[in-house]
Amino acid sequence: MTVRFAVLGAGRIGQVHAAAISSVPGAALVAVADPVAEAARAVQDTHGGEVRTIDEIARSDDVDAVVICTPTDTHADLIEQFSKTGKAVFCEKPIDLSLARVRDCLSVVEAEKATLMVGFNRRFDPDFMALKSAIDEGRVGDVEMVTIVSRDPGAPPADYIRRSGGIFRDMTIHDFDVARWLLGEDVESVVATGAVLTDPEIGRLGDFDSVNVILQTASGRQAIITNSRRAAYGYDQRIEVLGSRGMVAARNHHEADIDIAGAGGFTRPPLLNFFMTRYTAAYANEIAAFVAAVAEGAATPTTGHDGMMALALADAAVKSVDEGRLVKLAEVLD
Amino acid sequence: MTVRFAVLGAGRIGQVHAAAISSVPGAALVAVADPVAEAARAVQDTHGGEVRTIDEIARSDDVDAVVICTPTDTHADLIEQFSKTGKAVFCEKPIDLSLARVRDCLSVVEAEKATLMVGFNRRFDPDFMALKSAIDEGRVGDVEMVTIVSRDPGAPPADYIRRSGGIFRDMTIHDFDVARWLLGEDVESVVATGAVLTDPEIGRLGDFDSVNVILQTASGRQAIITNSRRAAYGYDQRIEVLGSRGMVAARNHHEADIDIAGAGGFTRPPLLNFFMTRYTAAYANEIAAFVAAVAEGAATPTTGHDGMMALALADAAVKSVDEGRLVKLAEVLD
Amino acid sequence: MTVRFAVLGAGRIGQVHAAAISSVPGAALVAVADPVAEAARAVQDTHGGEVRTIDEIARSDDVDAVVICTPTDTHADLIEQFSKTGKAVFCEKPIDLSLARVRDCLSVVEAEKATLMVGFNRRFDPDFMALKSAIDEGRVGDVEMVTIVSRDPGAPPADYIRRSGGIFRDMTIHDFDVARWLLGEDVESVVATGAVLTDPEIGRLGDFDSVNVILQTASGRQAIITNSRRAAYGYDQRIEVLGSRGMVAARNHHEADIDIAGAGGFTRPPLLNFFMTRYTAAYANEIAAFVAAVAEGAATPTTGHDGMMALALADAAVKSVDEGRLVKLAEVLD
Amino acid sequence: MTVRFAVLGAGRIGQVHAAAISSVPGAALVAVADPVAEAARAVQDTHGGEVRTIDEIARSDDVDAVVICTPTDTHADLIEQFSKTGKAVFCEKPIDLSLARVRDCLSVVEAEKATLMVGFNRRFDPDFMALKSAIDEGRVGDVEMVTIVSRDPGAPPADYIRRSGGIFRDMTIHDFDVARWLLGEDVESVVATGAVLTDPEIGRLGDFDSVNVILQTASGRQAIITNSRRAAYGYDQRIEVLGSRGMVAARNHHEADIDIAGAGGFTRPPLLNFFMTRYTAAYANEIAAFVAAVAEGAATPTTGHDGMMALALADAAVKSVDEGRLVKLAEVLD
Repeated sequence: MTVRFAVLGAGRIGQVHAAAISSVPGAALVAVADPVAEAARAVQDTHGGEVRTIDEIARSDDVDAVVICTPTDTHADLIEQFSKTGKAVFCEKPIDLSLARVRDCLSVVEAEKATLMVGFNRRFDPDFMALKSAIDEGRVGDVEMVTIVSRDPGAPPADYIRRSGGIFRDMTIHDFDVARWLLGEDVESVVATGAVLTDPEIGRLGDFDSVNVILQTASGRQAIITNSRRAAYGYDQRIEVLGSRGMVAARNHHEADIDIAGAGGFTRPPLLNFFMTRYTAAYANEIAAFVAAVAEGAATPTTGHDGMMALALADAAVKSVDEGRLVKLAEVLD
Repeated sequence: MTVRFAVLGAGRIGQVHAAAISSVPGAALVAVADPVAEAARAVQDTHGGEVRTIDEIARSDDVDAVVICTPTDTHADLIEQFSKTGKAVFCEKPIDLSLARVRDCLSVVEAEKATLMVGFNRRFDPDFMALKSAIDEGRVGDVEMVTIVSRDPGAPPADYIRRSGGIFRDMTIHDFDVARWLLGEDVESVVATGAVLTDPEIGRLGDFDSVNVILQTASGRQAIITNSRRAAYGYDQRIEVLGSRGMVAARNHHEADIDIAGAGGFTRPPLLNFFMTRYTAAYANEIAAFVAAVAEGAATPTTGHDGMMALALADAAVKSVDEGRLVKLAEVLD
Repeated sequence: MTVRFAVLGAGRIGQVHAAAISSVPGAALVAVADPVAEAARAVQDTHGGEVRTIDEIARSDDVDAVVICTPTDTHADLIEQFSKTGKAVFCEKPIDLSLARVRDCLSVVEAEKATLMVGFNRRFDPDFMALKSAIDEGRVGDVEMVTIVSRDPGAPPADYIRRSGGIFRDMTIHDFDVARWLLGEDVESVVATGAVLTDPEIGRLGDFDSVNVILQTASGRQAIITNSRRAAYGYDQRIEVLGSRGMVAARNHHEADIDIAGAGGFTRPPLLNFFMTRYTAAYANEIAAFVAAVAEGAATPTTGHDGMMALALADAAVKSVDEGRLVKLAEVLD
Repeated sequence: MTVRFAVLGAGRIGQVHAAAISSVPGAALVAVADPVAEAARAVQDTHGGEVRTIDEIARSDDVDAVVICTPTDTHADLIEQFSKTGKAVFCEKPIDLSLARVRDCLSVVEAEKATLMVGFNRRFDPDFMALKSAIDEGRVGDVEMVTIVSRDPGAPPADYIRRSGGIFRDMTIHDFDVARWLLGEDVESVVATGAVLTDPEIGRLGDFDSVNVILQTASGRQAIITNSRRAAYGYDQRIEVLGSRGMVAARNHHEADIDIAGAGGFTRPPLLNFFMTRYTAAYANEIAAFVAAVAEGAATPTTGHDGMMALALADAAVKSVDEGRLVKLAEVLD
């Protein structure tokens, strides 16, 4: 069975997913929608999907699944709309910036028994998958500490930050999901710190650029997340897991695997600088996993629940910084 | 302009090139030929080229270029045949195992003013390209020594070895080309050693499995090549260049960029084990470079001359081991 | 001028310092004291200091400086006693487990204008010194985040833990000092988490074995400290500092700098497993720095104030875990 | 039993050995000799040996062993002189630059049943010892290829080169010994190349600065040695051994184990730049091994025979470059 796709939103990430759909066996790009006609047409020209409106896609019999790459504030509505059409839905994170809205949306998904996968691409990075496999195979014993260093090469534009929901909901949310994935237990509490160190403009927008978070589970497992909106040496993406029998760590990706040695030392090129280059394989694997789930009628590897829980952790982190205290996850979920 | 391709030979390497053609912008796969009907059809089904015979392809107006992936002993004939059709030719190394035959073939190519690129994929590996750029940018100063470690995970089947022309012409030939590319001067002399250490069967076939070669240029630059048909830890592919101001080295590629630490130490996964996986990007870049050259009517980055010179170095290495002495390249070329 | 030393306490760490004194130019070991006669005599036999009682040493005209390596609960008394004799004092951390007692002790030191250096050996590790120099030379720009991973190979005996003051005062205290050294600004607040994951016995003793701490300065700089009492792969000691222009990181020390590659991957030996082996050079450098300061009448690189501040951070961390909130350092200092 | 030492020659390497003797348990420095009075006195002042003449030392009852650190052309005479006194002899490499003279000298040693250890410090480097242990434990299976990269940071003065016997006898000789140590079989043949690339003055002195050598044993095992008198990035000392089941490799030593990352990449400091710093531990281990052998009346780990064989390999390499051919070791030994 070939899963026939429509991509909603033909911006940067929509193009990434359109390319992934084109390259994944068992998937076909049938349609693409975007209010900006040229954007939609560019995808059509490169990857072959037909330009349609979202409503046309909702009515299209030849579409089995949609990938939602539209602005965040449309995600929940579109999930609800397409859940009711019986089409499988892949939605970029986050479902919404409001936990209440997410909850309502997920009720609809559940009522419709719809298929919903939320895009947490990092779970599909080959190295992180190898790290997870090592844990699952027991090579580090029982998980005790997860350490995540996640730093962007540079901050997004002010306009993006303004609508982002803040660094915890926009950037750390990926790390919250990774931490949940690796801890192997539900997170119970959150403490976080935040500061503005790279650009005062970020502070004027009410956001932070430098944050740290400690998550803790009921049994005491801890995850430490450290984020910065700036890293002069590239896109820093590291995960390390300490267990009772050892540790597993994933290395960064450099622009090239060479070393140049001279009187000043041995130099490796900086890190890959852009999330799409760094996570090219992850995006392709992610769509392939969605295709496999849809084709087999199986559960998707990430779900609406995962999207909600990552957002809840972000809300708890915001509250922790605001109130200078440890916040129980239950406080924001109830 | 789109370069329209036919692939001759639908075996393993033919499939690699068909996939590359499909993915490279500005290239289209039009036809595929193989005496084994299912092999040709498999390429057609996956990548869309039409199954034709070689002669049909030679007569096809809708084919601009061919990629020769047939058995080695057909290469020179096909190069000549297609040179006369005005089609651009990309041929997998080697052109032939006989230097005399190569020379005759190249005369035809030259007479026809045909375009011929010989497939030395390593020059197109992203890391090796970065290494070459570092040299060209003067970051290591004048090149003095090139060190190439090139070890296969395991030996090919006896039947392959029998027809291979021996390790120097089959395996080291890639390293000879890399050495020529990086030395920046013509090689003048060759000394080599060879032994059978991994499997006595290889010796019975009259071949070696463990060889070392030192190339030297007129000014004294040296390249050291070390080959083995067996490396328990994977496909070992390293290059290192010492210059007057420093050194540049390309690292190996592991199955995953993780480390697992325990009481026994810190373990990284073994190296990628298969040349197609290791050089996936190189194969795609190689075809893209050929497409660019054909589209622009420009010189190809590797030529028939490169193919001939690498083979001459192999012949000189064979002679060096046989006679226990340094062999001038001129001895085999004249 | 040669600085003439007496070592008080001939246990494990006393032996380390006696050896360092013997090897440092400009220092001489004159005397050693220990209630266990054989321990004192062993130092005398190996390093040449004469066995005396502490009181004899206090009255000795031929002793310029003492190194206090006795049990923690005697440190403050001995510092006071020797400060009054005009001898320079080097004291192993901590000065005392009670901040009030430390404060009183330091008043005496100040009143006597005595020289007091507190043993924070990590500041003298060659790699950490190189890291600090890189920061001081501006190679990473303004410091933003300090990340310290510090894990012991295994927990000390229950009896040691019982008298240790808890993990924050016993183990993290080193990391608190390193963080203060590298942050370049006073710490203002502390949040911490703690759990028992490696051995329930540690919990029964009222201590944690797995803790994380975030320190924050007034301007928002943050230090993240992660500790565990167990690391199967050896003594894990890493520091990483992110700045506005880059990052500097110190690598771990392995038992040997070799890699063994096989079908299972590439393995480096585990980390040096013992603090004395890992920090051999640091202990020697530390004593050399003390000797230099005493000989020149200069300020010591670490002071009683450093000892007090590290302890205050530990107290704040304890309070943070207890009360589930961010604790201002001023709360414990006032 | 304490082995009582005299050091003959108080230059740079004599000081290294005097320091090693002082620090090794079971060894004592009793005397030092040097025609330059201040040099001898400096050793006496620092390490405590009494200044004596060589002849006085030969007659001294309180000296059990001598370490010969005098100029090369005195080594053989001193070995013979002290062999006859019944004192154990440690001699810096080489015994002599003439193979005939070495042979004569070793006859005397043998006739006197004297103890002679030749200083091949690299065998005592902790990492190389770990590499050797890995081989001996069978972790790489049967040895097939040994690869040695050995590059000096810069060339010695012209005057030194003039008296050195040439790069193969002066510099490569260490690598010849290491290759012999690791191959596990007698070397049968040698091929070598040489050139002048770093400084034409070296050529005017009749020497090379850039050489490569391939050694081969009867069963076909090969060792590849690559040397340069210049490496802008420091003292490059690497060994790698391929076996039937894997590979073991020893890493270089950097000035510090830190990485500084910025927009230009990730930089590690250059390599330790000086053989005494790089091999500090090796020199101490070497003397300790000699002390242990003398104290126990056991065989020394390196012998006069090792010194002779390394020199024979150097002679064969010289002949190979001169005559442009593979040279059997038997040709120079007979």
